[in-house]
Amino acid sequence: MRTTVGIIGAGPAGLLLARLLHRAGVDCVVLETRDRAYVERRQRAGILEQGSVDILRECGAGDRLDREGLTHRGFELRFEGEAHRVDLPSRTGGRTVTIYPQTEVVKDLIALQLAGGPPLLFDTRVVAVEKADGEQPLIRFVRGGPQGQEDTLECEFVAGCDGSYGASRRALPAGAVSMHARTYPYSWLGILADVPPSSDELLLAGHERGFALHSMRSPAVSRLYLQVPNGTDPRDWPDDRIWDELDVRLAAGNWRLRRGPVLAKSVSGLRSQVIEPMRYGRLLLAGDAAHIVPPSAAKGLNLAFGDVVTMARAFAHWHRTGSAALLDRYSDNCLRRVWQAQFFSHELTTMLHAAPGADAYDRAMQLTWLRRVTGPTAAAAELAENYAGAPLV
Amino acid sequence: MRTTVGIIGAGPAGLLLARLLHRAGVDCVVLETRDRAYVERRQRAGILEQGSVDILRECGAGDRLDREGLTHRGFELRFEGEAHRVDLPSRTGGRTVTIYPQTEVVKDLIALQLAGGPPLLFDTRVVAVEKADGEQPLIRFVRGGPQGQEDTLECEFVAGCDGSYGASRRALPAGAVSMHARTYPYSWLGILADVPPSSDELLLAGHERGFALHSMRSPAVSRLYLQVPNGTDPRDWPDDRIWDELDVRLAAGNWRLRRGPVLAKSVSGLRSQVIEPMRYGRLLLAGDAAHIVPPSAAKGLNLAFGDVVTMARAFAHWHRTGSAALLDRYSDNCLRRVWQAQFFSHELTTMLHAAPGADAYDRAMQLTWLRRVTGPTAAAAELAENYAGAPLV
Repeated sequence: MRTTVGIIGAGPAGLLLARLLHRAGVDCVVLETRDRAYVERRQRAGILEQGSVDILRECGAGDRLDREGLTHRGFELRFEGEAHRVDLPSRTGGRTVTIYPQTEVVKDLIALQLAGGPPLLFDTRVVAVEKADGEQPLIRFVRGGPQGQEDTLECEFVAGCDGSYGASRRALPAGAVSMHARTYPYSWLGILADVPPSSDELLLAGHERGFALHSMRSPAVSRLYLQVPNGTDPRDWPDDRIWDELDVRLAAGNWRLRRGPVLAKSVSGLRSQVIEPMRYGRLLLAGDAAHIVPPSAAKGLNLAFGDVVTMARAFAHWHRTGSAALLDRYSDNCLRRVWQAQFFSHELTTMLHAAPGADAYDRAMQLTWLRRVTGPTAAAAELAENYAGAPLV
Repeated sequence: MRTTVGIIGAGPAGLLLARLLHRAGVDCVVLETRDRAYVERRQRAGILEQGSVDILRECGAGDRLDREGLTHRGFELRFEGEAHRVDLPSRTGGRTVTIYPQTEVVKDLIALQLAGGPPLLFDTRVVAVEKADGEQPLIRFVRGGPQGQEDTLECEFVAGCDGSYGASRRALPAGAVSMHARTYPYSWLGILADVPPSSDELLLAGHERGFALHSMRSPAVSRLYLQVPNGTDPRDWPDDRIWDELDVRLAAGNWRLRRGPVLAKSVSGLRSQVIEPMRYGRLLLAGDAAHIVPPSAAKGLNLAFGDVVTMARAFAHWHRTGSAALLDRYSDNCLRRVWQAQFFSHELTTMLHAAPGADAYDRAMQLTWLRRVTGPTAAAAELAENYAGAPLV
């Protein structure tokens, strides 16, 4: 098999890239380890910045998003038993965010691609990316499970959209790139609950006992998180204990949290990673393959979209003119946005979590910070700007 | 001796308080350990916020300040060999800062007070503050050196304006207040140089080797600082080494640093302290007696002025109406501003210093932060707002 751009991974980054390349007349093939049903069930992010909504609409994936997505014009920061609303449009020239789960974005993009897009091969495990430093990189893969036949895809470029544990990262020779990494000293216990959200907007709590988040998947399903120590076993958190702790941390005035059956429960760590540059020869990385942010500011999916919009533009330019100038600037152009998102995600995380060992001075500084971003100063505008995100240029 | 408000310390806080109380018709006496010549030579801060300039003018201490003070409409942040100017008036509704050394402020206030203000006793060492928790606190002091006579000042209130090593802090019984404290993992090597400043405005450098600051005392005298490790001996830094290192850290384009004779050289640590509440019974703390900030944002003197303006207003209200309501809110009203200044001073310090053990990730985040506050977003407005300071209400 041969193609122009071999795309590894049918997550939102790989699928959107395929869509954008198809529209620009650039051949590509998408290879995905898992089957379609698995990919369409994979629970991940759920908040789309204005720029992400715009690009999905622009490439024809906006119909169901516009029907079913929940537009959020703000969110609440809660601390010291008080609720402070952060209004987005008034601070950002009209920008909002949209709640629309990543699983639904993926379903929409898969449907579009299967209805006339470039090839999308499920059940196709990439074994290796070879010759990325040459003119003609090669993807070796196995189709149809462990007993399947090995085959190769010859490409002019490879787009690594297969996350932080994928074949793309493994194809980077030692020393070829720098890897920056941090692990946060706390984790999130997340639940999916079969109960309508208790608020129309997201609630982020910076309680002295730790962070809590009230979010939603849909008008019928709530998504809730609690900061817990690293190494926490979800079995130590029966449902009642979770609801009781959410009650304490999210409390403000007469607001009440609705309880319901817990559909899923899991603990995940918070980490930051940045690979620099986001390219090795003719292998270009995008999304989680290139960087990880803690989930607090919901930047992961939006950053991935930013990467592939930048990448697709660079490929289109190269395809049209033969110039690799934009491809050569791909990493630098992405990394500016990536570091800004890293920084903001780190800020929002630090502002709202109780660090192990924090004392009264730390708490006073944290409350000062929270009062500043919920006050009348430019700090509030900065928070809104960063949360709503910049256009994906 | 008897008075209404006994003021300990003839630094800028104590002297301004005396002036404000005098104008409000409230009796007071100022006690100062050192002699006048010493107090008028004591080198300290040198940057007055708009609000500090306004209050000095308002109480008649603005003539020489207006003649000799240097109005600064901005400053420069330097990093990665580039200079980024932060404009203050355009971001803050016209606010500026003024370079006018604390020694000059002190001289002006002393001259005013000796020309008809309340008693100002030099060479008067406070031995103890007693009965602060009662109705009639007492200051015990010794006049005229170690051999002097002990005497007492009976007051209705005591204002502790005698810094972080003074008698006021020693008068706080264990457990009466909370003390928050932090020591930064680096120090400043400062020099005073007999050479005109090499720039009209302050230059703050966030070099990967560490912080550097170009400032000035007057059009003829430069003030320069370098971040150095804690425990640094100034004798390890001959003049040439200092100038060479300043050249490296402050470098930007064709700008050149003028060298000249070094008049003074010293190393000082960076620390944060907040005493909460800023009051014990009838002893009210102001300025360094209540809180210390690292010098990076030049907030110490301005915070002290904020405290005594708040305190003078509370005494005037009590004197006029008999109500202690404002005195009872003194600490809370001050602490809001104090914590904001602590937070901003911590931010500006962290943004510009190389922390021991910092790695490439830390540096990338620091540069991201610096680019954000020097970019076109609300972060730049926030920096200017905080640097220029709010009105002293």
